Amino acid sequence: MATLLHLDSSAFHEPSVSREVTATFRREWEARHPDGTVIYRDLAKDPVPHLTADGIVATGAPADSHTAEQAAAGALRAELADELERADAILIGTPMYNFTIPSTLKAWLDQVIIVGRTGGEGGSVAGKPVTVVAARGGGYGPGTPRESFEFVTTYLEKVLTGMLSLEVEFIIPELTLAKTVPAMAPLIDAAEASRSEARQAAVQKAKTLAERFAA
Amino acid sequence: MATLLHLDSSAFHEPSVSREVTATFRREWEARHPDGTVIYRDLAKDPVPHLTADGIVATGAPADSHTAEQAAAGALRAELADELERADAILIGTPMYNFTIPSTLKAWLDQVIIVGRTGGEGGSVAGKPVTVVAARGGGYGPGTPRESFEFVTTYLEKVLTGMLSLEVEFIIPELTLAKTVPAMAPLIDAAEASRSEARQAAVQKAKTLAERFAA
Repeated sequence: MATLLHLDSSAFHEPSVSREVTATFRREWEARHPDGTVIYRDLAKDPVPHLTADGIVATGAPADSHTAEQAAAGALRAELADELERADAILIGTPMYNFTIPSTLKAWLDQVIIVGRTGGEGGSVAGKPVTVVAARGGGYGPGTPRESFEFVTTYLEKVLTGMLSLEVEFIIPELTLAKTVPAMAPLIDAAEASRSEARQAAVQKAKTLAERFAA
Repeated sequence: MATLLHLDSSAFHEPSVSREVTATFRREWEARHPDGTVIYRDLAKDPVPHLTADGIVATGAPADSHTAEQAAAGALRAELADELERADAILIGTPMYNFTIPSTLKAWLDQVIIVGRTGGEGGSVAGKPVTVVAARGGGYGPGTPRESFEFVTTYLEKVLTGMLSLEVEFIIPELTLAKTVPAMAPLIDAAEASRSEARQAAVQKAKTLAERFAA
């Protein structure tokens, strides 16, 4: 029985293109794993706390030396690491805020990356597939004027492979602000096409991964 | 009378190289502006909340349409924007966590960048100088094997200039983990030299800026 870890991080619930596309992925996955488990975290609605000094010490020093605060901070990190370790596949929805991921998603990364457990050489989650739905308001693709301002996929690629050794794939619905920003009105059709392609890619990716983890 | 906005974001208070270097800058600045104002935010000790949908709506929709939650979220954003607008110079201390800034600093950025006020064309803080003390545990400079994993200065450069039109300068003490990571022991002298250079750069930069804003 396969387990999917599904995270969303858009501050908006409706409308949110990243949430719509992760939901599309999840429906397809669940149709193929009706008895499987989905662990869900809505990082906007229920954010995990920022990483603290207590949390850093908790994963670096022996348990019998921990204060009560360090033990509690360490327990949260262990819970998040456990969810990642239980997952066969991971699905992350993220918007772009000020050129990179929201602070809520960074807080989750800082908590869950534990060198010596999930992170670093021989980490416990190496090789797991992660699908990132990275929605963005404008166009930041290769060759565009804003390419060098794109720190969502460039950053996540490095941190998810470099720290967690995950296998990363991106689905990128873009121009999501076309309907609300008057100057982007000529891009409404392109935005709709990008969203539709993203939904199709999500279905395809979910199908491929669900088959890979079929019992 | 000059105003300095000083932010720290390292989860650790002691030892913290970024905090040590921002403190060095601030002492020099205060010595030259004894009657000036320093607005201080310790983002680790007292984090600002993550940006929420209410906060986004609050800065985009007319005030008379706001719910109580939107009004409260908007008031916080206005308070942070006001601090930035009052500052003659800005000083930011940041560590590198998982290749980029901590979630606490990203939360502050997401709150304070308000397109139509602080952000975007004709923004209210354009041209102000910001000195970023970007401490990092290893070596990520140009030509090093880890250069492409560096998302602290590359990101902050783009967001602080591209969104807020600030004038950005970096002070970069590196190899700060040399004393605690056994494999980095041969780098202890280089780390000490980097830290010492950073302190000197902070004194020099504070002096230059303090003179620029002398009454």
